[in-house]
Amino acid sequence: MTMAVDAMGGDYAPNAPVEAVCQAATSFSDTRFVLIGDESQILAAVKGNLPNNVTLKHTDVVIEGDDEPVRAVRRKPESSLVLAAKMVADGEADVMVSAGNTGAIMAAGMLVIGRLPSVDRPALAPVLPTFDGRGVLLLDAGATMDASAENLVTYAYMATEYAKHVLDIENPRVGLLNVGTEDTKGNAVVKQTFSLLTQSRLNFVGNVEAREMMAGSVADVVVCDGFVGNVVLKLAEGIGLGLFSGIKDTLTSSLMTRIAGGLIRGKLRGFRDRYDWAEHGGAPFLGVAGGLIKAHGSSNARAWYMALSQGRKFIANDVLTKLSAAMEERK
Amino acid sequence: MTMAVDAMGGDYAPNAPVEAVCQAATSFSDTRFVLIGDESQILAAVKGNLPNNVTLKHTDVVIEGDDEPVRAVRRKPESSLVLAAKMVADGEADVMVSAGNTGAIMAAGMLVIGRLPSVDRPALAPVLPTFDGRGVLLLDAGATMDASAENLVTYAYMATEYAKHVLDIENPRVGLLNVGTEDTKGNAVVKQTFSLLTQSRLNFVGNVEAREMMAGSVADVVVCDGFVGNVVLKLAEGIGLGLFSGIKDTLTSSLMTRIAGGLIRGKLRGFRDRYDWAEHGGAPFLGVAGGLIKAHGSSNARAWYMALSQGRKFIANDVLTKLSAAMEERK
Repeated sequence: MTMAVDAMGGDYAPNAPVEAVCQAATSFSDTRFVLIGDESQILAAVKGNLPNNVTLKHTDVVIEGDDEPVRAVRRKPESSLVLAAKMVADGEADVMVSAGNTGAIMAAGMLVIGRLPSVDRPALAPVLPTFDGRGVLLLDAGATMDASAENLVTYAYMATEYAKHVLDIENPRVGLLNVGTEDTKGNAVVKQTFSLLTQSRLNFVGNVEAREMMAGSVADVVVCDGFVGNVVLKLAEGIGLGLFSGIKDTLTSSLMTRIAGGLIRGKLRGFRDRYDWAEHGGAPFLGVAGGLIKAHGSSNARAWYMALSQGRKFIANDVLTKLSAAMEERK
Repeated sequence: MTMAVDAMGGDYAPNAPVEAVCQAATSFSDTRFVLIGDESQILAAVKGNLPNNVTLKHTDVVIEGDDEPVRAVRRKPESSLVLAAKMVADGEADVMVSAGNTGAIMAAGMLVIGRLPSVDRPALAPVLPTFDGRGVLLLDAGATMDASAENLVTYAYMATEYAKHVLDIENPRVGLLNVGTEDTKGNAVVKQTFSLLTQSRLNFVGNVEAREMMAGSVADVVVCDGFVGNVVLKLAEGIGLGLFSGIKDTLTSSLMTRIAGGLIRGKLRGFRDRYDWAEHGGAPFLGVAGGLIKAHGSSNARAWYMALSQGRKFIANDVLTKLSAAMEERK
């Protein structure tokens, strides 16, 4: 198995991806890793020797965080991100991992790798942290703005296979994000999706409200359109960051609170980590004709390692074939 | 001025509304308050004498939190909530305040009070707490699931008048909730709304992402459709509750953390209060032909008092006339 790694994307590139790849290369000696990016920067980030199963592919072109996604993918064919996608498209790699510009990663998935024949609309499926610590697979997180009920049902089928074979959930419970739990709630697309999911062979548990979704344990997979999913994701991140930073400010506001803060720092960090995106690895872009994992932009080496393990499992368990089979069966 | 108060809705009814009304009646001696609900329960909740400008209207019918909204409004015409709406419809009261079933409050607004002639779709407009402590007026929070771009523009006009004359914001900045700040972002309705708002005479500041909205100070008013708004509201509440309860658990998990917790309790509470819904009063249901304020379901006496003051200001500053004029001018 070969993994193509965009070493230049994300807040802690290239250090975090390089460290994680070196570690993963030791854990998974059967896997080949290709680090794509600025050779001198990558080598500077390597501590000790480069493992035998890691190779470099040099490029000094990078897609920046504020590049317009589709244009960047078209105009920067030599960027680390697009080169990684090309390796997957050409069969030189089985899966790519990047922590770069989310829009550009999705555009590279669509334009360079392409869709699975049975999937109209691929979907980005991050794990949203929940308060029970288990997290929920939320999709679509922003690939398709005007999704149809059919699209949402496809998301549910794809996520079910992914949850089974990568997250090791036996019979994933699928929920529909809605404004109430009653069958009749929602907008037109959501109501139609409810009816289609009820008729499907999926383990559909009905409508899920945002509040219950965050508490956790009501569903393993929650589907919504990409507009709503993206808003939910950014809101959850924004509130998490805002609250923790407010609490940090509170704890450092006086000598007494600093003393108290010292006493509880460890426990508070434990709680914060449970609500941390990094712990849940990356988001697969489901429905493209190859493995594609988007690691969180602020991934440290640990989060990168999780994303790499996830990508490896995606290929090792042949999720793509199972996902296509599920889509065919559905017809 | 007369205010009709549903004394039976909300988690702390009738105590919280009764206490708040008695206090408001003292502060606002020019205003008449009608407490609607179970007379014996209301009288039991009154401490001391009932102020002269407070009267009671007895009913023992209540709309419950889990009643189906439209059905409840139709089948319980004698409920405290519907009686309050009837007083507004009949001109016996200028404004009603309730902390009851949100759906039923909106249904009563639509079916009993009715819409302003110039407004197709009324919108619920709560203040979402933000981390700068100022809050943002978010609408629609759930009245209309499939809103058109025209509807969203109407929300922006109505909220602008409300923010000017009730929240005392001179030239309210209007933002459009979106998945990115670039002009081309969003789903079809949101893109069309962007274009209409750009052409309007409103103080439109462009697209606003959920993360920035929560940080605060990018906009005074943020518009979105009722599906998205409701999800945002419930998610924000769910995350706030989950994080604060997780922190509380952390602080009480051992003797040492309890000691530390004691040292910082006051400051932490100060921070939490800033992110508290109760501090921001109730949500007006804008676009109905009368004053209607929905107080938060978990309103204590203080939050109730804020909602009453808000309702009073809504009438005192003649927001309804200004709102209608703005809608006419727009044509």
